[in-house]
Amino acid sequence: MKKNKIAISLGDLNGISPQIALKAHKKIIKWCQPIYITNRFAFKNSAKLLGTKIPKNLKIINIGKNFKIKKGKVCPLSGKISYQSFIKAIKLTKKNRTKAVVTLPINKESWNKAGITQKGHTDTLESFFKQKAIMMIGCPQLFGAFFTHHIPLKDVASHIKTQKLKKFFLAFYRNTKQNKIAILALNPHAGDNGVMGDEEKIITKAIKKSNEKLKKEIFFGPLVPDTAFTKQNRKNFTYFIAIYHDQGLIPLKALYFEESINVSLNLPIIRTSVDHGTAFDKAYKNNNISIKSYLNAVKDAISRANQK
Amino acid sequence: MKKNKIAISLGDLNGISPQIALKAHKKIIKWCQPIYITNRFAFKNSAKLLGTKIPKNLKIINIGKNFKIKKGKVCPLSGKISYQSFIKAIKLTKKNRTKAVVTLPINKESWNKAGITQKGHTDTLESFFKQKAIMMIGCPQLFGAFFTHHIPLKDVASHIKTQKLKKFFLAFYRNTKQNKIAILALNPHAGDNGVMGDEEKIITKAIKKSNEKLKKEIFFGPLVPDTAFTKQNRKNFTYFIAIYHDQGLIPLKALYFEESINVSLNLPIIRTSVDHGTAFDKAYKNNNISIKSYLNAVKDAISRANQK
Repeated sequence: MKKNKIAISLGDLNGISPQIALKAHKKIIKWCQPIYITNRFAFKNSAKLLGTKIPKNLKIINIGKNFKIKKGKVCPLSGKISYQSFIKAIKLTKKNRTKAVVTLPINKESWNKAGITQKGHTDTLESFFKQKAIMMIGCPQLFGAFFTHHIPLKDVASHIKTQKLKKFFLAFYRNTKQNKIAILALNPHAGDNGVMGDEEKIITKAIKKSNEKLKKEIFFGPLVPDTAFTKQNRKNFTYFIAIYHDQGLIPLKALYFEESINVSLNLPIIRTSVDHGTAFDKAYKNNNISIKSYLNAVKDAISRANQK
Repeated sequence: MKKNKIAISLGDLNGISPQIALKAHKKIIKWCQPIYITNRFAFKNSAKLLGTKIPKNLKIINIGKNFKIKKGKVCPLSGKISYQSFIKAIKLTKKNRTKAVVTLPINKESWNKAGITQKGHTDTLESFFKQKAIMMIGCPQLFGAFFTHHIPLKDVASHIKTQKLKKFFLAFYRNTKQNKIAILALNPHAGDNGVMGDEEKIITKAIKKSNEKLKKEIFFGPLVPDTAFTKQNRKNFTYFIAIYHDQGLIPLKALYFEESINVSLNLPIIRTSVDHGTAFDKAYKNNNISIKSYLNAVKDAISRANQK
C-alpha cells in the first residue's frame, strides 16, 4: 500500500519544533510520507545549530523569506513563516494533495508581532473554513472534548442549553464514530438531585434527545465529575465530553501530559497537533525533548486519513 | 516506644467495613494499638458471615444494642451503632485516651432512618466541636483541600474574597505545617490576565497577604489549573488548595483513587478516614476488597499523632 502523504507544518523554528521533527523523522517515514512545510534555509540553520543535518529523504516544501534562527526568541519573521506554513498545509490537504495536517507549535506573540490577526491554529482553521471546530485533546487511552473553552468559570452554567448540547454531542459523534461517549455533569456529585445545582437536568435531556436522534445509546451520563476519570471508569470509556475546559484538561494532563495530542474535528480536513508549546526555554539546549506527543499526532493523523 | 492507641470507628457493619478491618488487623497492630469501637455481637456476626473469627488480640469497646447483620442493606440499627461508635471515638480521643480517630464508612441513609440529624462524619465533628473543619483528601504523593465544597459550580466565583481565602490558607498551613503549598487559579489559563475572568487578582492578593503574615513564602500561585497536576508539577508540590470541589477531586481520583484518604483538619482531635463508601453492592461477597485506603488512613493518623 502506498504510504499517505502527511503535511507537517513545522511551527515556530525558534522553538523546539525542528528538534522534534528531526528526532522523529526516521520513525515517521516508516509510517507515512511526511511533507515538511517551512523555510528551507531556516530549517537548515536549525539543523546546524542542533549539530545535525537534514536527512536526504526529508522532503521540504519551501516557503517564505529566508531567515536566521534566533534560539528561543519571539520573532515576527519566524512567526510569519509558521503562519504561512500552516496555510500552505491546509491548502494542500484541502486539495487532497496531502491527506492530513500535523502541526508543531507556533508562538502566539510572534504571530501577533508579524501582524497576523488569528490567535492560533484552531482560530486560523475556523476562519479558513468558516466553520466551528471541535477541539479534542488526548491520547489513545483517553480523549476529551470540551463543550465550553476559554470563558470565565462563572459563565459556564449559562451556556448549558439543550439544543446547543445536543448539537455538540451529535457533531462529536459524527466526527469520532465512537459507540460509547461519556458526558460529564457540571456540578459536584452531579448536583445530587438538584441540591447543588440543577444544570444536570438539561444535560440529561440533551443526552436523551441525542440518543433518540441516533436511535441507539451512544451518550452516557451525566457522570459525577470526580469519579469520571478513575482507573475503573476509564475501563468503561475512552471518549469523554467535559462541560468546561479544566474539567477535561486537568485529568488529561494529570494522567497523560507528555503523550497528549490535539485533534481538530468537525472540519473538511484532518488536523492533529502536539499538545505542548514552543518551549522557548528549552529550545536548542539539549536532546532531552520528548517526541511522544508528536509521534502520537502523526499516528492519529494517519489513522484518521485511512478511515476517511 | 509504646504504641499509640488509635480509635477505630467501624462504620456501617452491613457494608464492607468489617471485612476491611479484619483483613488489615494483622498489619496495623504492628504499627499501633487499635481500639475497635462497635457492637461486639454484630461484629462477631460479621466475622462469621465472612468465614473468619475475630482475632484474640483485637480489642473491642462494645457499644449499642446487639443486632444481626443485614448484608448490604440500609438499616436504622446499623446506622445508629455507626453513629454511636463515632461519638465514642471522638470522646475517647478528646480525653486523650486514644490519640486519633480513624473512621470506616457509614451509610447516610441508615443514619437518616435512625433519626440522626447529622449528614455524615465531618458534619458530626463540626457540630461536636462547634468549629469548621478543613477536609483534606489524598495520599502521601498528593494531598488536596478545597476552598469550596458542595455548592453549585456557578456560585463558586462569588465565594472568592481576599479575607476568606487568607483565613483558609493560613488555617491549612497551621494544620499541615507544609513549607510549600500550591494554590490553584479559578479560571482556564488562570484567566490569561483577565481575559477569561479576573478572580485571579483576588487569589493573588490573598496569597501575597498570607505570605506576608507568615513572613515567608509558603503559598505559591495561582497556578494554571490544567497543568497544576502534571507529573512535572507534582514533583514541585505535594499539597494543593483547589478553589472548588471537582478541581481538586478530579485529579486526585484520576491518579490515586484506591489509596486516597480523608483527613479532617482544623479540629481539636485528629481524624482520618478511608475515602470510599460502604459499597453495599460488594459487601459480604468476596475477598477482593482493597484495604489500601484504610491502611493509609491508619498510617496517617499515627504519623499525625506522633507529630502532635
